[in-house]
Amino acid sequence: MNKQRLEAFSDGVYAIVITLLILDIRIPQVQPSVLGAALVGMLPQVFTYVLSFFVVGLYWFAHHRVSHQVKQIDGTFIWLNLIWLLFVSVMPFPAALLGRYPLQRIPIAIYGIDLILANVTGFLITVYLKHHPVLCINPISAKSLRSQVPVYAISNGVYVMAIGFAWIFPWLSYGLYAVVLVWLMVRYARINNPFQPDRKT
Amino acid sequence: MNKQRLEAFSDGVYAIVITLLILDIRIPQVQPSVLGAALVGMLPQVFTYVLSFFVVGLYWFAHHRVSHQVKQIDGTFIWLNLIWLLFVSVMPFPAALLGRYPLQRIPIAIYGIDLILANVTGFLITVYLKHHPVLCINPISAKSLRSQVPVYAISNGVYVMAIGFAWIFPWLSYGLYAVVLVWLMVRYARINNPFQPDRKT
Amino acid sequence: MNKQRLEAFSDGVYAIVITLLILDIRIPQVQPSVLGAALVGMLPQVFTYVLSFFVVGLYWFAHHRVSHQVKQIDGTFIWLNLIWLLFVSVMPFPAALLGRYPLQRIPIAIYGIDLILANVTGFLITVYLKHHPVLCINPISAKSLRSQVPVYAISNGVYVMAIGFAWIFPWLSYGLYAVVLVWLMVRYARINNPFQPDRKT
Amino acid sequence: MNKQRLEAFSDGVYAIVITLLILDIRIPQVQPSVLGAALVGMLPQVFTYVLSFFVVGLYWFAHHRVSHQVKQIDGTFIWLNLIWLLFVSVMPFPAALLGRYPLQRIPIAIYGIDLILANVTGFLITVYLKHHPVLCINPISAKSLRSQVPVYAISNGVYVMAIGFAWIFPWLSYGLYAVVLVWLMVRYARINNPFQPDRKT
Repeated sequence: MNKQRLEAFSDGVYAIVITLLILDIRIPQVQPSVLGAALVGMLPQVFTYVLSFFVVGLYWFAHHRVSHQVKQIDGTFIWLNLIWLLFVSVMPFPAALLGRYPLQRIPIAIYGIDLILANVTGFLITVYLKHHPVLCINPISAKSLRSQVPVYAISNGVYVMAIGFAWIFPWLSYGLYAVVLVWLMVRYARINNPFQPDRKT
Repeated sequence: MNKQRLEAFSDGVYAIVITLLILDIRIPQVQPSVLGAALVGMLPQVFTYVLSFFVVGLYWFAHHRVSHQVKQIDGTFIWLNLIWLLFVSVMPFPAALLGRYPLQRIPIAIYGIDLILANVTGFLITVYLKHHPVLCINPISAKSLRSQVPVYAISNGVYVMAIGFAWIFPWLSYGLYAVVLVWLMVRYARINNPFQPDRKT
Repeated sequence: MNKQRLEAFSDGVYAIVITLLILDIRIPQVQPSVLGAALVGMLPQVFTYVLSFFVVGLYWFAHHRVSHQVKQIDGTFIWLNLIWLLFVSVMPFPAALLGRYPLQRIPIAIYGIDLILANVTGFLITVYLKHHPVLCINPISAKSLRSQVPVYAISNGVYVMAIGFAWIFPWLSYGLYAVVLVWLMVRYARINNPFQPDRKT
Repeated sequence: MNKQRLEAFSDGVYAIVITLLILDIRIPQVQPSVLGAALVGMLPQVFTYVLSFFVVGLYWFAHHRVSHQVKQIDGTFIWLNLIWLLFVSVMPFPAALLGRYPLQRIPIAIYGIDLILANVTGFLITVYLKHHPVLCINPISAKSLRSQVPVYAISNGVYVMAIGFAWIFPWLSYGLYAVVLVWLMVRYARINNPFQPDRKT
């Protein structure tokens, strides 16, 4: 029951973040005759919006896969979860920044850093659960934990590359963020029973 | 249980979108003596607000009717559902655009395109369920699926017409959007047991 | 179960509206030396905020008292409920208007009209339930319905008076809105089992 | 069941408030060349954001610990709970004020006053439950209530000190707010079964 409340609260946060993203897509204030051009000029914002929408959706998915393994929670877990939610709740800021300053180094870097921080926190929560089997429905084996390392390592590695490319090929940074997103989405899409910890494709 | 979490998340998104719509109705910043006139000038925005409010309500209704047939979910279903939520979450933008630029072609077209995309995604989800009976409480028969085609075809057809009329009779576009909305609301209102897939009037 | 989803959706809308109200209290953009004076000048907004916060809380309370009597829902009930939610979701607009244009007639009138419309819709829902006993856990007796008429009549009557006084004693309008709110809150506070339809004090 | 609805509504409010905080971190509107400097200049806002995020998280935690003891609710409890939610819902305003006017006395004082009011309301709710054992799963003993007094006294005492220091060492005020937050978070983190009223460390 405790767990369910934490999930309900977290689901609420995810639902709000994913919906708030649209508030940063402000309608242009121009003469109607140039509205079309103004809207075309917003395409970078639209790209960032759609990217961020699915990023938040992906974290929601990941959150459920973690919490599905949980039987009961303790105080530390609640704070770890809250830190995870912090890095997700923050997302509208880097998303708006990237939309407002397209192809700029700093916004690309901040966006990537937020993705990495959220990723790392998610992984730390799994590590914490591994070391506190009393909180889990089934203890998390070392093998199961190790099997998750490559995904985290690859996605974070690509994020770091994307941040680096911001200084030379900013378009490539966008592409790398999108590629990781699509890769993770396809991985998850192939899960038959998505809230089970063990993935069977 | 999986399904319930997806529903709770989706319900959250619908509730937030439908409530956020009011944020785009900004209060006028004028001298009190001309406040009345300023408010009257906002009537196109109010029309768009009310229209969009019930459009989102209608999609929420449709979402529940679809998810009521679902027994369990897989990864693909989650992404399809998220795409559906994307086209609903986006709604505050075309609504604000249409309120800010009343009777303009491009806003009318964008509004209609969003309605069509949301509609088509809803239909694709039903098609997906039809081809994955393991996800359904009762398999969706080809006949049941076919019976839904006319509603989708008519509503999307009228939306396309509304987009076309934006270039010649924009008022008619507004009327067509409103007519489809009222027609669908009346259809749904006549359902006795609204979350059952088979409609008995 | 159907009913629970409608309640969850409605609870979400109430929770969002009540929280969004703070967004209309914009922080002043002034020199720090005159910040105190600027904040004092915001007191009418604060009054409107607190008033509206408890108004939404009251409607949430009323909503639960109505839905507590419901066993199952039909399509018409869903739309009536959505109309009720519309008049609540709209609240941030008249609240912001009243905060921005304190003591002005039109904002006072619009605020009161929204209160009356929400009130009337709540009453119509009860009337609808009375005429559709199949939807209710226990049929609503004519006596029970009649017993609610005075509360609706008094509160709406006072709202109409408040709108009228906006033209001559606008302060009195504020007072009347606050008095009805406190009166209804005290009435509800005395309920021992608040989600039971029959009130025992 | 009544209680569950109140919890769901309250959880919704907490989830929304904690997520809305990011909306007050507006992206800077500057030339890309000075974006870095502009972002560094936002660090006071970021500090306030993170502080407020965990403050709201803490109140959410505290709310659950209180409501965990509740068996059923009455009208007065609902209003007390709503007053508690009011002081939490208000948080985006003092947070934005403190971020916009860093190190200024009045924003520091308003922030602290909101924390104290929320704290006191939480304590009053516990006192109310103590005097209405019929609402509780297990009656709250005088000893249990007394054991909570030091925590409330210390945290509120430090808040008062922080308000006082705003006039001479505003940095110290920030530090004191942060210290109380971390202290309470550590206290809660050491709880094994966080939603139990009796704390066993």
